[in-house]
Amino acid sequence: MLIIIGGDAAGMSAASRYKRRNPDGEMIVLEKTMDVSYSACSMPYNIGDADSLMDSLIVRKAEVFREKQGIDLRTGHEVTGIDREKKIVSGKKHDGSDFSLNYDELLIATGTQAVVPSIPGTDLPGVFTLKTLEDGRKIKDFLAGSTVKNCVIIGMGYIALEMAEALEKRGIGIRMVKKRPDLLPWMIPEQSSVVKDHLEEKGVELVTGQEILVIEESSHAPGGLKVKGNSAELTGEMVLVAMGVIPAAKIAGDAGLKLGPGGSIHVDNFMKTSDPSIWSAGDCADARDIVSGKDTWIPLALTANRGGRIAADNILGDAAEFKGIAGTSVFKVFDLEVARTGLSMEEAEAAGFDPVYADIISKSKAHTFADAERVHAALIGDKKTGRILGAQMVGKEGVARRINAAAVALQAGMTAEEFYACDLAYAPPFSPVWDPILMAAGNLIKKLQK
Amino acid sequence: MLIIIGGDAAGMSAASRYKRRNPDGEMIVLEKTMDVSYSACSMPYNIGDADSLMDSLIVRKAEVFREKQGIDLRTGHEVTGIDREKKIVSGKKHDGSDFSLNYDELLIATGTQAVVPSIPGTDLPGVFTLKTLEDGRKIKDFLAGSTVKNCVIIGMGYIALEMAEALEKRGIGIRMVKKRPDLLPWMIPEQSSVVKDHLEEKGVELVTGQEILVIEESSHAPGGLKVKGNSAELTGEMVLVAMGVIPAAKIAGDAGLKLGPGGSIHVDNFMKTSDPSIWSAGDCADARDIVSGKDTWIPLALTANRGGRIAADNILGDAAEFKGIAGTSVFKVFDLEVARTGLSMEEAEAAGFDPVYADIISKSKAHTFADAERVHAALIGDKKTGRILGAQMVGKEGVARRINAAAVALQAGMTAEEFYACDLAYAPPFSPVWDPILMAAGNLIKKLQK
Repeated sequence: MLIIIGGDAAGMSAASRYKRRNPDGEMIVLEKTMDVSYSACSMPYNIGDADSLMDSLIVRKAEVFREKQGIDLRTGHEVTGIDREKKIVSGKKHDGSDFSLNYDELLIATGTQAVVPSIPGTDLPGVFTLKTLEDGRKIKDFLAGSTVKNCVIIGMGYIALEMAEALEKRGIGIRMVKKRPDLLPWMIPEQSSVVKDHLEEKGVELVTGQEILVIEESSHAPGGLKVKGNSAELTGEMVLVAMGVIPAAKIAGDAGLKLGPGGSIHVDNFMKTSDPSIWSAGDCADARDIVSGKDTWIPLALTANRGGRIAADNILGDAAEFKGIAGTSVFKVFDLEVARTGLSMEEAEAAGFDPVYADIISKSKAHTFADAERVHAALIGDKKTGRILGAQMVGKEGVARRINAAAVALQAGMTAEEFYACDLAYAPPFSPVWDPILMAAGNLIKKLQK
Repeated sequence: MLIIIGGDAAGMSAASRYKRRNPDGEMIVLEKTMDVSYSACSMPYNIGDADSLMDSLIVRKAEVFREKQGIDLRTGHEVTGIDREKKIVSGKKHDGSDFSLNYDELLIATGTQAVVPSIPGTDLPGVFTLKTLEDGRKIKDFLAGSTVKNCVIIGMGYIALEMAEALEKRGIGIRMVKKRPDLLPWMIPEQSSVVKDHLEEKGVELVTGQEILVIEESSHAPGGLKVKGNSAELTGEMVLVAMGVIPAAKIAGDAGLKLGPGGSIHVDNFMKTSDPSIWSAGDCADARDIVSGKDTWIPLALTANRGGRIAADNILGDAAEFKGIAGTSVFKVFDLEVARTGLSMEEAEAAGFDPVYADIISKSKAHTFADAERVHAALIGDKKTGRILGAQMVGKEGVARRINAAAVALQAGMTAEEFYACDLAYAPPFSPVWDPILMAAGNLIKKLQK
């Protein structure tokens, strides 16, 4: 019996793969919520569009998994404990009753949970997080039923920024606040200032360096909320807590499984935890950093899908290896595309490299095109080995899909010289003769030689 | 004394690099035409825009090279002979007078010339090729001064297709004709049919399998032209001969230099020809194919720029290596982006591989975006080694910059498995969770295992 805890990207990828390869194998999928397999990453875009239904983000309904794929998928089943000795998982059903199940193999794919600060007021009406589809439905219902003139967003990560765009699109004023002094701390300053300027141009109010003390109801306006920081107050009719996520790894930790960075569940390259009968995949599990080789925790959708699939293959007896991740990611914030892959300067230093970066400003198209947009491209390299360690890009066009060239270079362990030698595409409507990322490589070579 | 023959991408890249590194070195650049350093690739887009000036495509004027960079640039100087024994180049100036110059080192960067078939009528008014800026000016002047209702384009390569779009934009009906039966013979049929359907949707008439016999003036309409094939006749007020280019390598061949594929000038990885005092770079020179390791000839702008620069470095005593090219290219035809890198199926077979391809249809964005466009992505792999040999993509969005990931994979010599393991970017506005090119890699792995 294979038990899978979690019915989202990693869990359902594993379940589908396992069932396809082993139709007669015993398998049960336990999902805490009533929703499985939805595009969580699309929620901000859905919220930005008042006319669309949140449920349109469902990729495959639970019934389809049950009826078409024959998967024993039990929604409303929250696992609260793992008995590794007896190989039993136990928990609570949606209706309050208890359940317990025996397993031979267990896959933990519990994902993440939203960070909610321990301050008063996070449970007030109008205060939201955005993690589950149910969170998304609640926000959408709230927007449909209330007059929201301003929203205070706590946090400035990519969900926070995507939500800023989505809510602004619905005519809501955006006030963002966070504790740390920098907007996007992983970004080189030349590029994060581009994002900052763009947000301000779009009328977004940015307040950094604020310890958030309390969320309270405003005495001035009915339905008003006030977010109090140590030296600033921000008001609105809605508050979104978007301070990031942490691994949903409590049951794994309680069961004594080895944990990895950020409290994630540590797995080897074959998705196995420290218990030979227990596997983990998806946003709750750690991975190898393809650049440093060290354990890392970066929850991303492709990693989850891939990890679930690899876990299923290994549970079936393969030796499928997940070599590692570059943490390649991209997000859109208003008219900007922001992308990264590999290590930031700080991460590179922490991993023992001697990093230096080269940042260039180029164009999204040939100079002969009047509508060519500025593209900022940076590469981070290691002075000791000449290797590329990471890449960062910002621009209004031609950034999102351009980062992948650098991601492949990281996977191949290329030096800046080797990457500079790559034959990338050129045509006037799409690129200058030297692709911006190649120009960055050329500059990086010079900096590495110094 | 360094003599450089040719003042476009490769020649001027070499000249600028040489002068910057060796300001006191003796160097003369000889350019046949009066134009240097312009964006030839942008000419179709410029022609499509009646209001723009063709001369806006000039990147740097001859005077700038002379005055700002101190380069002895002699325009209107056509080299007609090389005496390798005496190390002398000789030729004719624009005014008809002769010149001869001694060299210690010679760089041949003569580029290409348009293929013009040996048939009657190619010299008629209204019949054009598009190779030089002067060709572009002539076409633009003709369009400004005549009423062109229809244009017959002979050839269906990327210049032909870019010009089809440009002329259609100016309200001209397009009739295209070629000898071979296939529109784009290097493309897998699943993708070339997408291009064909799109052209027909845009009202372009396509006639293949025609041996072109003659171009003649039409007796029916003044200013009318008729292109006669073996079984079809196409009429219009303008004819564009866009049958591709050949290396401008006559002087090199006459001087007994070793020639490479397609009559190009053979160079080693250090841009040296078979004569140790003579170098070549740019569209006239051959290169190593990064996939097969064999000599190849693919004239592309990035290769020319890179080759010129590397030649200059080696002339100055470095050992800078040009490892090879993947032939990565992209073009736009109406609303489609078409891209390729590496070998086609036919090229792969000819190079001794055992190729197989996997073609998938995916989307440019997450399925939750109603405006996501279809993306066709194909990867070609070698059954013997599992290596990726090439990639091809077509779609209305997200193709051009996406091909670069595959280009880097080719440079790194990755197998399909290794490429499939790459951590590419995902965000709903830009990609499905599995990037189309990764999906193609997944399918290719299955095909390679058969």
